[in-house]
Amino acid sequence: MNNQILINFCPTGMVPQKSITPHVPISPQEIIEQTHEAYELGITIAHLHARDEEGIPTYKKTTYRDIFEGVRKHCPKLIICGSSSGRNFSEFEKRSEVIELQPDMCSLTLSSLNFLKQASVNDPDMIIALAEKMVDNGVVPELECFDLGMINYGKYLIKKGILKGPFYWNLLFGNIAGFQPSLIQIGTAIQEIPESHIFSLGGLGEHQLAVNSIAIAQGYGVRIGLEDNIWWDEKRTRHCTNLELVRRIHDLMVIHGRELLTSETLRKIGFFNKKKLEKINLPVSSN
Amino acid sequence: MNNQILINFCPTGMVPQKSITPHVPISPQEIIEQTHEAYELGITIAHLHARDEEGIPTYKKTTYRDIFEGVRKHCPKLIICGSSSGRNFSEFEKRSEVIELQPDMCSLTLSSLNFLKQASVNDPDMIIALAEKMVDNGVVPELECFDLGMINYGKYLIKKGILKGPFYWNLLFGNIAGFQPSLIQIGTAIQEIPESHIFSLGGLGEHQLAVNSIAIAQGYGVRIGLEDNIWWDEKRTRHCTNLELVRRIHDLMVIHGRELLTSETLRKIGFFNKKKLEKINLPVSSN
Repeated sequence: MNNQILINFCPTGMVPQKSITPHVPISPQEIIEQTHEAYELGITIAHLHARDEEGIPTYKKTTYRDIFEGVRKHCPKLIICGSSSGRNFSEFEKRSEVIELQPDMCSLTLSSLNFLKQASVNDPDMIIALAEKMVDNGVVPELECFDLGMINYGKYLIKKGILKGPFYWNLLFGNIAGFQPSLIQIGTAIQEIPESHIFSLGGLGEHQLAVNSIAIAQGYGVRIGLEDNIWWDEKRTRHCTNLELVRRIHDLMVIHGRELLTSETLRKIGFFNKKKLEKINLPVSSN
Repeated sequence: MNNQILINFCPTGMVPQKSITPHVPISPQEIIEQTHEAYELGITIAHLHARDEEGIPTYKKTTYRDIFEGVRKHCPKLIICGSSSGRNFSEFEKRSEVIELQPDMCSLTLSSLNFLKQASVNDPDMIIALAEKMVDNGVVPELECFDLGMINYGKYLIKKGILKGPFYWNLLFGNIAGFQPSLIQIGTAIQEIPESHIFSLGGLGEHQLAVNSIAIAQGYGVRIGLEDNIWWDEKRTRHCTNLELVRRIHDLMVIHGRELLTSETLRKIGFFNKKKLEKINLPVSSN
């Protein structure tokens, strides 16, 4: 598996606006198109955030449904992940609406934390309620970690039987109040991930390329997209597109002789929504 | 300096109640007495939380004043630190009331985080406002870190000139959503502390003794008291007193040939409230 690189594509996020970079996809149609382009080039998971008509992050199922249906139509095998971020909405009902659509995965941030300008509050009861709703809906949680303690809390939920697997982690380095992309910190974090689990490494802002490159060199997954970084280069000389970022990942993979871990392969090991497949009477792997 | 061990005494905290352990000091009189006993044995800093008459944590200046005046009377040189914790009060006015008493130090938690049962929210604006009020009042911040990202945020505040020094850090290992007391995590954390800064290591619950012992072996400061751990032993066979915990630290120091870093020594390098001394026309070191 280590020669196969998982690519987690995050084109939009909560923060970038058209006023910041013209390349960020905001409308469902733009998100569908850019995800489709990336899928044609080769990605494994699409981590998708919805925006309303003013470009403001929205939790609304109707918008997520438009996005998911469009992506599913053009990218039939792609693993689709919705965001349950609490950065802009605090209520469980809002945050968990997207789970009811039963995408393959939904994000689960494993503690409260600070970003540069704001706190993102995910108290223990909220995390457990979101996790349980995901499990009830057959949705695989995307375990989001910005620091060591979040990995520890994820392992605690696993030990308690609240998270049941399959297990996938995103380790995001370089947030101002999170772990940083030094080799010692990345190495310390990776060491905490249980051996059989799948994970990707992402870097925020100027750290994205270095962290992704380290991941490809080591055979780990990468998280790539404008959600985390809107610049082509560390010196910030120009804004880049999502497609350029994915293409550079593929260029690195070619140099290292790595292949894409396809969404089909990930589906074979349980990264699909069993409940949803059961409903429409498709055969379900017993994995 | 490395042969001198700083002891940061934390007798009460926000959580332990008499119903949990009879040994936790709750009233100002109990806190003063137990701090006095520990001071006689040898401590450097007292990190103090106030409680109301029902034992509930309080931010009230009047209660803190009673505690500080009593401690000052019996322990004239001791470095006194008040808590600005936001775990039970969210408003800046409440959290920062204790700073107006101008103790030597006040705690400053450097991000939002989760404990086992609740979130503790310290958003960036709150942290900066507390830091600025401490600086304005001549109070040295006690930089509280439960994970790597908090150290990074502290260094960011220093770089921005918001924190001006002297610099003292508490690294607290073993919170469920924080860094853990493995040697690799402790080592990774310590490596992030700038070389000239002073720091102590604390372990939560069953981890307290191991973390303190590592600190003494390596010549670092220790944080010790019932705030973090109410049991004598890892197997939790009996509740201990604050004095027993401090005595065990001294026993370890004797074995290692370490001496106490006295509060007088810490005062010589700037750990006192300059503003307060200016007001009462005492000579102030220019350090």
